[in-house]
Order: sequence, then structure tokens, then C-alpha cells
Amino acid sequence: MATMKALVKSEQARGLSLRRVEIPTITEDHEVLVKVKYASICGTDLHIYQWNEWAKNRINTPQISGHEFSGEVIGVGKAVKGVQIGDFVSAETHIPCGYCRLCRTGNMHICRNMKILGVDTDGVFAEYAKVPEVVLWKNSPALSQHFASVQEPLGNAVFTVTTGGVAGRSVLITGAGPIGLMAIQVAKALGAGPIIVSEVKDYRLDMAAKNGADYVFNPTKEDVFRKVKDITNEEGVEVALEMSGNEKALALCIDALLPSGHISALGVFDKPFPIDINKVIFKNITLYGITGRKMFETWYIASSLLLNKRVDLNKIVTHLLPLEEWEKGFLLMEQGNCGKVVLKIGE
Amino acid sequence: MATMKALVKSEQARGLSLRRVEIPTITEDHEVLVKVKYASICGTDLHIYQWNEWAKNRINTPQISGHEFSGEVIGVGKAVKGVQIGDFVSAETHIPCGYCRLCRTGNMHICRNMKILGVDTDGVFAEYAKVPEVVLWKNSPALSQHFASVQEPLGNAVFTVTTGGVAGRSVLITGAGPIGLMAIQVAKALGAGPIIVSEVKDYRLDMAAKNGADYVFNPTKEDVFRKVKDITNEEGVEVALEMSGNEKALALCIDALLPSGHISALGVFDKPFPIDINKVIFKNITLYGITGRKMFETWYIASSLLLNKRVDLNKIVTHLLPLEEWEKGFLLMEQGNCGKVVLKIGE
Amino acid sequence: MATMKALVKSEQARGLSLRRVEIPTITEDHEVLVKVKYASICGTDLHIYQWNEWAKNRINTPQISGHEFSGEVIGVGKAVKGVQIGDFVSAETHIPCGYCRLCRTGNMHICRNMKILGVDTDGVFAEYAKVPEVVLWKNSPALSQHFASVQEPLGNAVFTVTTGGVAGRSVLITGAGPIGLMAIQVAKALGAGPIIVSEVKDYRLDMAAKNGADYVFNPTKEDVFRKVKDITNEEGVEVALEMSGNEKALALCIDALLPSGHISALGVFDKPFPIDINKVIFKNITLYGITGRKMFETWYIASSLLLNKRVDLNKIVTHLLPLEEWEKGFLLMEQGNCGKVVLKIGE
Amino acid sequence: MATMKALVKSEQARGLSLRRVEIPTITEDHEVLVKVKYASICGTDLHIYQWNEWAKNRINTPQISGHEFSGEVIGVGKAVKGVQIGDFVSAETHIPCGYCRLCRTGNMHICRNMKILGVDTDGVFAEYAKVPEVVLWKNSPALSQHFASVQEPLGNAVFTVTTGGVAGRSVLITGAGPIGLMAIQVAKALGAGPIIVSEVKDYRLDMAAKNGADYVFNPTKEDVFRKVKDITNEEGVEVALEMSGNEKALALCIDALLPSGHISALGVFDKPFPIDINKVIFKNITLYGITGRKMFETWYIASSLLLNKRVDLNKIVTHLLPLEEWEKGFLLMEQGNCGKVVLKIGE
Repeated sequence: MATMKALVKSEQARGLSLRRVEIPTITEDHEVLVKVKYASICGTDLHIYQWNEWAKNRINTPQISGHEFSGEVIGVGKAVKGVQIGDFVSAETHIPCGYCRLCRTGNMHICRNMKILGVDTDGVFAEYAKVPEVVLWKNSPALSQHFASVQEPLGNAVFTVTTGGVAGRSVLITGAGPIGLMAIQVAKALGAGPIIVSEVKDYRLDMAAKNGADYVFNPTKEDVFRKVKDITNEEGVEVALEMSGNEKALALCIDALLPSGHISALGVFDKPFPIDINKVIFKNITLYGITGRKMFETWYIASSLLLNKRVDLNKIVTHLLPLEEWEKGFLLMEQGNCGKVVLKIGE
Repeated sequence: MATMKALVKSEQARGLSLRRVEIPTITEDHEVLVKVKYASICGTDLHIYQWNEWAKNRINTPQISGHEFSGEVIGVGKAVKGVQIGDFVSAETHIPCGYCRLCRTGNMHICRNMKILGVDTDGVFAEYAKVPEVVLWKNSPALSQHFASVQEPLGNAVFTVTTGGVAGRSVLITGAGPIGLMAIQVAKALGAGPIIVSEVKDYRLDMAAKNGADYVFNPTKEDVFRKVKDITNEEGVEVALEMSGNEKALALCIDALLPSGHISALGVFDKPFPIDINKVIFKNITLYGITGRKMFETWYIASSLLLNKRVDLNKIVTHLLPLEEWEKGFLLMEQGNCGKVVLKIGE
Repeated sequence: MATMKALVKSEQARGLSLRRVEIPTITEDHEVLVKVKYASICGTDLHIYQWNEWAKNRINTPQISGHEFSGEVIGVGKAVKGVQIGDFVSAETHIPCGYCRLCRTGNMHICRNMKILGVDTDGVFAEYAKVPEVVLWKNSPALSQHFASVQEPLGNAVFTVTTGGVAGRSVLITGAGPIGLMAIQVAKALGAGPIIVSEVKDYRLDMAAKNGADYVFNPTKEDVFRKVKDITNEEGVEVALEMSGNEKALALCIDALLPSGHISALGVFDKPFPIDINKVIFKNITLYGITGRKMFETWYIASSLLLNKRVDLNKIVTHLLPLEEWEKGFLLMEQGNCGKVVLKIGE
Repeated sequence: MATMKALVKSEQARGLSLRRVEIPTITEDHEVLVKVKYASICGTDLHIYQWNEWAKNRINTPQISGHEFSGEVIGVGKAVKGVQIGDFVSAETHIPCGYCRLCRTGNMHICRNMKILGVDTDGVFAEYAKVPEVVLWKNSPALSQHFASVQEPLGNAVFTVTTGGVAGRSVLITGAGPIGLMAIQVAKALGAGPIIVSEVKDYRLDMAAKNGADYVFNPTKEDVFRKVKDITNEEGVEVALEMSGNEKALALCIDALLPSGHISALGVFDKPFPIDINKVIFKNITLYGITGRKMFETWYIASSLLLNKRVDLNKIVTHLLPLEEWEKGFLLMEQGNCGKVVLKIGE
């Protein structure tokens, strides 16, 4: 039995284990076997590591974690046509059924029968991973391998930004975690301006400025609503991107928006909370909920922005660690003093 | 001094007074003087009659009420080009400034410097009314004069329905007041189906069925969420139109919606209330706030639907009263046992 | 060896042969075997029958023709999940690869590696047909079986009409063949008005009126441009649907359109011809090419319109013939004195 | 009588005359008097100078030419509210009536009763100009005065680029005159990539590269179709911008486009010519005609791109000349060896 290193959720408690497990083999016609080169750590992976309430209810153990990656195809099921052995690939995390109403109307990313890679199935924090063809994404050889891993969260940022229509428009971004930071770059790459960021952590505010925000404010120290009005000549911003999951931030987005404006909401909230929906009504606002990424429109845009150097992930990926130092990466994420953390897994 | 009959908010208390006042005269180059034929009663007029909190804060007395009307142009300011003496007209209620950012980007209906006819200025419950050219709408002579008055609220229904994209789609409408009833007809005229209505008043449920709803439910007696799921083969509706201002109704819209679906929210709510915004996010929902009507795209659609007999206001206008019986009309509205109430004012 | 009746293109010459051939068997995991109940004749089938230039270059013989049908699933490959034995089904004609860029961005209907049912593969003018799962469409049991067969061309009409945005708008339709007739009904069901039809054959003009056109004109006898201007108060129509493949008709669409209007072009033309593209430019016109149907957004809309009785195929299906009378159907089509011709194949 | 310098079309022959004429005075309530600082030369001005067929049929003499400018408000009619004395302004060239159907539905730029500044009225190649309030655009004081003049043609580029949706998409631009060059910058600022330019003049090809095109080709020397296919991995470009008015260029756009792609056509053609419209149909292409600029959505975007330094007009404005050297500017334009030529008129 051939074995590989893998980062496994083995216990129903905080933590993960780096151990040797069996290398997966192809058993279905549409499966693809990938030698993983790089994998990046997502907030979801951190929740599994921390073993929060969501994880307790969702994750079966033992299971390999991780879903953001790049690697090389080393095996294909007999029906696979979209990729070949040797291809440099990444993958979408949302594994759709392909036959439900949502899959059949351009909404695979919210499939009725969705499985999530590394959440409902073994993931990619391992030397090898088995992934269904439907989610495979063939990378350009010109793309850096560790940036290729980060395309998936970059896609969240792209989906959030593009639904708002930011070209030549003022944008407020609330929350500058990794996806918020990418949203700054994407918004800028798509012609937005000015880009105003509200974020409570100083490390992230600093990152926001480095990633191209025109203005950065800490709402615990400044009246961001007033700042937005000052910057926009009292008009308010045309687009707001809520990426924090903080209820005050959503209220700020609604208040700071120009009437007729658009809010894309990606941040997940702890619980229902009061919203003054009359403001949405009287201001003729669009509030648009973001989950996942359009498959695969968003991937085409994200990879184009990378390949054409319209965004620069060097300013996002703050840590590149060997797999063995995985726990350092998770602890960095827990503290929030990092951008994106990428693990180097294979050659 | 020539005088006319007019329904005036004269006291800062419940009620209106039918009295004789001076006929307005044109003083500005872009003004139009109209001999009013018919005028219809809106919920806003009822609030002014009832003298609720909103009215106390907004209305200056004495002032002529009313904003939905049809009539004949009998005088024009010297710069008026869009209408001529003798034209059969109605008017948009929202009087835009024409030069703010919103006016200059296709959003006159949410102008920064908006005045509302019959709220911020003398209105149309009078034999003559003076209206700025910018809001005048020239009717086809083929249109019935009392239906012409009702085009303005029909426009609310059209704006609400058209933003959702209802062609060949299932629609839930929460609230079957006059605009909700019109929304049923408009949705049907635009190819929606099935059309499911949720409404607490029996009179209105009955009206909803008569206006073409495929299913009508009283949420105090039935589990409308379950009904929607049954009717839609467990998928949920593709579009929801919230026209009640009831918080449970908005929650129902969110829950009963197919992921990727669209909610247009027109009903105004009493106060902020808890909303589970995560459902909007994870279901990739669009929540779109409706106020007024697109000027004048909505008017073109509304009048086309009327002229081409795609909607039938005979099923909406339940009462046609002479001006002298105005109070009967307001009391009917207060009880809710009516569709649209139209007052006949001139010949 | 089990055999079945099938209408086969056996000779490289005009005609088809009704003969007995082997019943197909499932050999791939995603295949579905259908007992055909009804199948309808498309213009493409007529081209194959006539053996025109296109057919000579495209069709391999012997091959079973036909692609519009309804039937019952009687066998499924082992990977099939979207349908079950006993399901009442129809199918999309365009068989997409599923992995090309177009398939992955909501454009399966123009797949790079497209195969057409009954053109590139054996078709459905037979008692049994084998169809890949990806194109199967599960019908509601409430839908009439012979109308279910006609959903596919109805989908062409739906795609053509919906891309134009016809709600409350004036529409010119040039060409009233079967899809043009369906477009009249669909446009009307979606709130269009007035609907003006230009068609050179009297039989079809008569059919156009019966299917709900507000005005019908024969351009060989009347100045349709002038008529459109008269009807639209000199404005021109807001939407034009070119469904004839006649160059004068396209010129009429461009001329008769309101500036800012939309043209959907479905009719295929004999050859390139001069177009005054400056008119498209100076009138700020959108010219949108239609091929196939959005998979499967269009199918959802088309079936909704049928199930909710917003369109009535009784006015479109003029002939329902037993399979044995197939040639009568083809000759009717050749003459053009028919709407849609449906063949009854199985019970 | 106060006089000013003005560049006047005085003879019905090639040429213009720099002479002294009366300073205009405000006679209508909505007029604004502007002291012109800079004015730029458009292709239309060149046609008037050259006295081509179009000019002969359209221009009444004597008339001051010019329509692109920036300046300072020095007088306002009594009804003017949108600008004040001292404001730094430019103006839209298309003077709409404000009351036609197109004006009332967000399409002022194709008004039925349009007048063009400097074509149907006295223009801005003068020390003072009188302009109706409806077209005035208030500039930010932060904007450079000579770039402010160039916003109007920049708006053409913005309208052309934004209708295509270029974010993260490959773009072919045929024609690199001044607006084509601006389109390169705008497309890049909005996230397009790669940007491929086809242009026959070497000077302009060189300018195209300097303005950010990723690839530039001369179609008289290279097979641009083949190049596009090579660059796009045989897919074709997602968006094409036709800015040359050359029929081969439009054919190239259609051929080189990915199915489902979008063409914006701005270049005006000499005459109708054969187009293979079947390709538009079978490729499901959108062909969108561009004229003028959306009023004022495009202005907001254009000025935002300038103020936020997303585009750099230093690479576009190749010549800044005193008014007295106007003829040098026109001759440069005639030769085509220039980008944008700006005249300095006042202080």
C-alpha cells in the first residue's frame, strides 16, 4: 500500500494531525488524481482546526482537510476529457451534482446537492488528492504554482466585486481579511475609485493600504460614515462590499451608499440582527448575497487578472511554509496577523 | 378672484375639508395648468387624512391633498414644449430637480431634491391643479379617463414586477392591497406563473383570486411556506414581491425563494427588525428596494399594458365616487374593504 | 435482435425511408433509452429530407432523423441521476461536451464540440431513441404528450423573445413560420403590445392573426415601415424579432426600430448581404444573434408558459399524423401551409 | 460691443477663419456663459474644416466651430441651478430636448430633437461660449484644465468599453485613432487583458503600444485573425471594439470573437457593405452600436477614471497649441500623426 503525508482531522477536538495515509486511487470514471504542489489555508480550514460549532455539526472524522490547491494531474478516470495527465491544475471547491435545477441554470455554485471539497470529502492538504473532473480547472503554465492555489479565494473577491459593477465608481469595503484584501486589488484592477476600507485591526488596515486602498479607516476610532460622505462630496459610495460579517458594517454599507447603489454581502454573520430595511427601499438599493464563485465565469476572470498582472498576489500571500510547519500557519490565521498562508506540499 | 372646489388639509388634526379656494395661475415658465377630471386616493392621502406621525412631520397646512389624477391641459408656461393646451394628461408624483447626480443618471425617481405632489406642494384633489412640465405624462386619447388616474400606482406595481424578471417564473406576492392586486395582474400579463399570494384579509384574498392569482393563502390560517414548496415541487419561487410591510412576510419571501432568486421589496416597515441575512448570502439572493417608479420607463410600460389590454383596471377600481363623497372613499380605504377608490372631479 | 420502426435517411438523395432497424441499447453510463411517444418535424428535418447542400455536407447515411420528441424513459445508464425509468421526458437537441469554455460559462447551447441529435447522431423518428442524460428534460405529467414534443422549437421562440425584453413594449416580428408564430404567442404572453407581423405568405399571415398578432402585413403588398410608424405614433417599435432569414426583413427591422431598440435575429440567411451598419450605430441599436436555446433557462420558461397556459400550442400544431403518414407531413412543411406537424409514434 | 477671438466657419469652402466676433450674451433662462480655457479638436471639426459632403449638408455659415472644451462659468440665466459663476466646467456636445421619449427613458444621447454644439449652434473655439445648462458638466477643481476638455471623447471610449463588459476579458480593438487609443487605456483600467490592437498606420500602432496595448498588429502586414487565435489559445476574444469604420475590421471583429462575445461598434462606415450576419447568429454574438455617450453615466465614469488616475491623458494629448496655431493642429489631424490636439484659448 502506497502512502502519503496528509493533514488529517482525526480527533473530534481542536487540532489536526500530520500523518501518513493511503494514497487515493481512481474508482469512478470522472475522477482525477492530482499530485498536490501547493495548498492554501482558508477560514473554513481554521474552523475545522478550531473545531467550532459549525465544524462539529458538519465534519466526519477522520478526514483530510484543505480545498485550495494547485498540482499536477497524474491519473484520470476513463471518461475524463477536460484534463490530461501532466496538466497543471487547481479546482473549484463546490462539487455540484450537475442535474439539479440550479446546476442547469448557471448556478452550480449553489447546487441543491452540493458537496464541499475538504469538508464533505477528503481534501487537499496531502501529497495526493482525488477530485471529480467537474470542478477541475486547468491552469496556464505561465501561472506561478503557489498563486494558482489562491485563485479559489481570489474568485470570491472577483465574484463580490464584479456583481457590483465598480468601473469608475467609488467603493466602500468593510473588512480587510484575505478576501477583503483581494477585493481591494480586484476593485482597483477593474477601475474602481476611490476605494475606501473600514477595518478594525491595525495589521489589516496597513495591508489594505499596501494593497491599494485609497483610504483606510478604523471604525473604532473614526466616524467612517462621515469620512465616506466627505470623500464622496456628500454623495455616498456607489458600491459597498461587506466582507466582515459584522452587523455595524452592514449598517454602514446601507447608510454610506448613494441611493440606487449596490451592496454585495459576502461576510457571514453570527446571527440574525435588526436591519433598517426601509433604507434599502427608499434608497432603491440592491443587496446581493455572495456565496462561492460563479462556475466558471469567475475563474476565467480571476485567472485573466492574474495572468495579465492586473492583480499581484505577492501583496496577499504573506507566508509560504513547508507542510511540516502547517500549525504555524493555522496559528497565524487565528491571530489575524497575516494575509494568505500557503503550504508547500510537493515538488 | 376665480375659485374652485378643493379638498384641503386645513387643520393639524384628522380630516380634510372640501372648500372653495383660489384657482392656481401659472407663474413659472415650465408650469402647466390642468383641469382635473379624475383623482384617486392613495395610502399616502389616507395618512394625511388620519394625520399620523409621518404626516405631522411632513405636511404644511393649509394644503390641497392628492397626487394621482387625469385631466386636460388648459394653460402652459412659456417654456413648455412637451404638452399643449387640450392634451389629456396625468403626472408622475415625484418632482425631480433635474440637475442632481441621481437625476442625471436615470434615477430621477430618487432625486436628492425631490418634492412630492400633494405632499410638499398643493395637490390634485381640486378642480384645477398646477404641475411642473417635468412630471407631466401625455395620455393616449384611447385611455379611459378614470383609469388614467390610476396609472401612477400601477407604475409602482410595474416597477416592482419588472425588476424581478418574472417571465415564465413562479412568483410569491405578500400583501394584496391595491398595488399588490395590480402586481398580480402585471405579473400575469408579463408571463409569470404560478402566482401565489399571501394576505391576511379575506376581502383582499378574494380580490387577489379575482385579479388572477393562481393560489391565495391566509398566513394566519395556513403554512404558506409549506404551500409554496408543495406548489413549486420543493424548489421555492423564483421571484418574491414583498408588498405588505410585514416582517413575517419578508422572512417568508426569503425562506420561500429558490436560491439565486430575486425579492423586490415595496412595502414600508414600521421599524427595523431582525433579518437572517445569512440566508440572503448563502442562497445568493438579490434583495431590491422599490420606491416610486422609473421615470419614465415605467410609465411607458404601464400605459402600454393598459392600452393593449394586458391588464384590466376594472378589477382594481372598486369605487368611483363624486368628489362630494370623498370622505366615504377615505373611510373605505381605512377599513381596507376596497380596491382602488377614484373620485370624479370635473367633466 | 429486437427491432423497431424508424424513419431513416438511407439514400444520399431526396427522401426518407420508414423501415425496421435494431432497437438501440445503452452502452455508456450516462445514456438514457426512451420509448418515443410523439415527435415533431423541424425545418432541419425537411432539409435532410430534401437533401439540400447543407444536408449533403453534414449528414452521414444511414441515420435516423428527428430531434423534437416526447417519450418515456425505459432504460438508464448506471451513472444517470437526473431521470428515472418511467419519467415522461423530452430533450434538448444540442448535445454539449460539458468541458469546453463555452459549456463552463453558461453557453452549452454553443458548445465548441457540439453534436446535434438527429443530425450528428441517430434521431427520434423511431419507436425508441438513445439520448445522453445531459440533454434530457423531465416533463411535468400535467403536460400534453404531443405538446411536450414541441417545447424544443417553442424554446427558440422563448430565447428570441426574452433576450429582447418585450414587457409593455411594441414588437415587430418578421416571418411567421412555426417559430415566428410561437414568438407571437410568447411575446403576447410576456406583455408585449402592439405585436406587428410582416410575412409574405397569406396562410401564415392568417395564422399570425389567429395566434394573437395585433397587426399583420404582407410586405409585398404594403409598406410595412410606414405601417409600423403609423401604429407607433412615428416612434418605431422597441423590439424587432427577425425570424425569416430575408435580407429585406432585416433592413426593415433596423429601419422600423426606435433608437436604443433591440433586434433578435434568428432567421438564417442565404448569403452575406449589404447592411447599413451606420444605422445600427447612430440609432444605438443592439443586434443579438439567436441560435438554439439557453440550456436550460429557456426550457424552464417554455415549460412554465405551457403549464400555466400562457401559450396555447393548439393554435400552432395544425397537423397530428401517425408515423406512417410521415411523408404527408414533410410535404405540408415543404408547401408551408401548416403550423407545426407532429407525428404520433408510440402509445 | 464687446468682441472676442473665435475660429469661424465663414466660407462654404475648406478652411476656418480666426476673427473677432461679438461675445455672446445670455438670452434664455437656462443658458450659461463660459470663458473658454482649453478646447480640443475632434474629427467632426476636421470634417467642417475640410468641408466634406456631410459638412456641406449640415453646417450653416458663419458659425463658430468646436465642441470639446473646459472653462469657467461667468454668467448664468435666471433659472440655472446646476452650476454657479466661478465653476470649472466642460459640457456634453449633444443638446437634448428633454421631453421626447428617448430623453425620458435614459437615452438623451440619441434625443429625437438633438442639436450638436458647434455643429448646429455656435461652438467653443472662441474666448467665450454660451451653452445650455442641460449639457453643462461641473469639473472637479483637481482635474487639469486641458485634460478636462478631452473628457468628451474619453466618454466615447468609456461608453464603447463599458457596454462590452471587459473585466478580466480579452479585447480586440480595431482602429487606434484618438478614441481608439483612449479605449485601450480605459479597457486596461477596467481590467481587460490581453488587449490586442489592429491598426494600419505605424504612428498609431506605436501610440497603441505606448498606451498599454498588449499586442499591436498591422493588418496590411500580418494575419490578425490568426494572431488573435494564437494569443487566445484558439478561443477568440471575448470583446471586440470596432473603432475604425473599416469594413474588413468589422469582419475581423466578427471572425475573431469567441461565440457569445460582444462587439461595440463606434467607427462610422462610408457606405453599406456585405456582412455575414449568419456568423452573428450562429455565434450568438451581440453587436451594439455606439453613438455619443450615456448622459451622464459615462461622464461620471470618465471623470472618476481621470481623477483616480486610472487613465493618463498625457499619453493621448500629443499637442497643446495656442489658439493662434489652430491650423497646425488641423493639419496634424489631417495627416493622422497625432493623438489628441488641444488648443489653449484663455487663461
